[in-house]
Amino acid sequence: MNHSNGKVFLVGAGPGAADLITVRGMKLLQQADIVFHDALIDPQMLEFCIQAILIPVGKRCGRHSTAQAFINKRLIDASQKHQIIVRLKGGDPMIFGRADEEISALESAGIDVEVVPGITAALAASASLKQSLTLRGVSRSVAFFTHVKAENQESAVLPEADTLVIYMGRSESEMIAKKLLDQGKPEDTPVQIIEGISTKHERKLSLTLKEMHEGAALTWFNQDSPALLLVGAVFRNRLQDTGILTNRRLYG
Amino acid sequence: MNHSNGKVFLVGAGPGAADLITVRGMKLLQQADIVFHDALIDPQMLEFCIQAILIPVGKRCGRHSTAQAFINKRLIDASQKHQIIVRLKGGDPMIFGRADEEISALESAGIDVEVVPGITAALAASASLKQSLTLRGVSRSVAFFTHVKAENQESAVLPEADTLVIYMGRSESEMIAKKLLDQGKPEDTPVQIIEGISTKHERKLSLTLKEMHEGAALTWFNQDSPALLLVGAVFRNRLQDTGILTNRRLYG
Repeated sequence: MNHSNGKVFLVGAGPGAADLITVRGMKLLQQADIVFHDALIDPQMLEFCIQAILIPVGKRCGRHSTAQAFINKRLIDASQKHQIIVRLKGGDPMIFGRADEEISALESAGIDVEVVPGITAALAASASLKQSLTLRGVSRSVAFFTHVKAENQESAVLPEADTLVIYMGRSESEMIAKKLLDQGKPEDTPVQIIEGISTKHERKLSLTLKEMHEGAALTWFNQDSPALLLVGAVFRNRLQDTGILTNRRLYG
Repeated sequence: MNHSNGKVFLVGAGPGAADLITVRGMKLLQQADIVFHDALIDPQMLEFCIQAILIPVGKRCGRHSTAQAFINKRLIDASQKHQIIVRLKGGDPMIFGRADEEISALESAGIDVEVVPGITAALAASASLKQSLTLRGVSRSVAFFTHVKAENQESAVLPEADTLVIYMGRSESEMIAKKLLDQGKPEDTPVQIIEGISTKHERKLSLTLKEMHEGAALTWFNQDSPALLLVGAVFRNRLQDTGILTNRRLYG
């Protein structure tokens, strides 16, 4: 077991915009000796840590990813040489990331780890839509999930909640809609799709569950941006306000 | 309809610690003319806006709350007199708050509104526990919910997801456990309870669903702090690491 004074901070970068990191996260970037960052991190955020060694790792929409074991190894190595090591992860580190593997590897090597939360994409999407994910009398619960198809290709059970947010669901939009319809969700349940949330590439699409099942989102997606699917009756109020339910509309 | 140049920002303060607000939220506080803040906001966070008029409103664990209609009215009035109005809300504004009512009231009055997301308590709890809410092979979904008993006293249906986080569930811990057991969750499902997350009053309790059903949490709660209940198999790894499952332990 190695011992050193280096400490690793798993920091949530938030949804994309450089100023949606927390103040604590920003201060750690400013003090960091070395920063291992996801490939999708906004270069403007990296200006907080111009003094640090920058190492791009991790995912870029499925392509060009660094193997997790190699990232773990590099974090452990860095803790032998540096005091403040930041692992900057898109969104929140504890939702749909692989933080557990990094934390376990570091703790097994006797290295101190701290986690700094980040704004997860669902909350940034909700803010952008100006529609809360829970609403008295309409939605008392919200669930986040991902990957309807598991690694073993067995189809996963979707969670049951009033509002649903699907991460990384772009390639499965029709199947997700089919499953929700099979579960008994009404055909006119509103869906909001948001790409590139909080970045200059942010785009939104409003449609119904029936339309998503029919493939309405497929030609709209931009393969270079992560997409979030939000499903639930809470999105009806705002849709009615803007007439989107009768005239499906792109806005971005 | 009133017209003015004032803009209202609904800003998430995050879970408690002053430096867990976003950089964008901090900058808005620094520029604000007037800040309407929840009563539970850390005074240290309000030091970001010493130039602003400070108006405490909102909830303090059920006591001493300002009526929502009155808050809406004051926000509208403030937009006639000021340029930058911040409504600072604990956690994220769009989860279990009443942001919709504020947004609707302001938009109906022709006032520009923007929402700045905040770290919701569940993510701060996950960071503190160093245990992600989703985990490959264990949990592919996480649901947040609140108020098992509705206003009309009808008992609500709990969402079904691999990991569950219950907000404001302190007074309902036994009933929540009973419902989850009735739904088929195993008796040894690990539960983590966190009070005062990210503040100097942070305390944690580890127990099983069976123990929570038997009332094990009741004498532990501190009525002055908000509490979060986290339930799911993801918490087993860390419990086994520390031997908590066999020896229930308080740590804080």
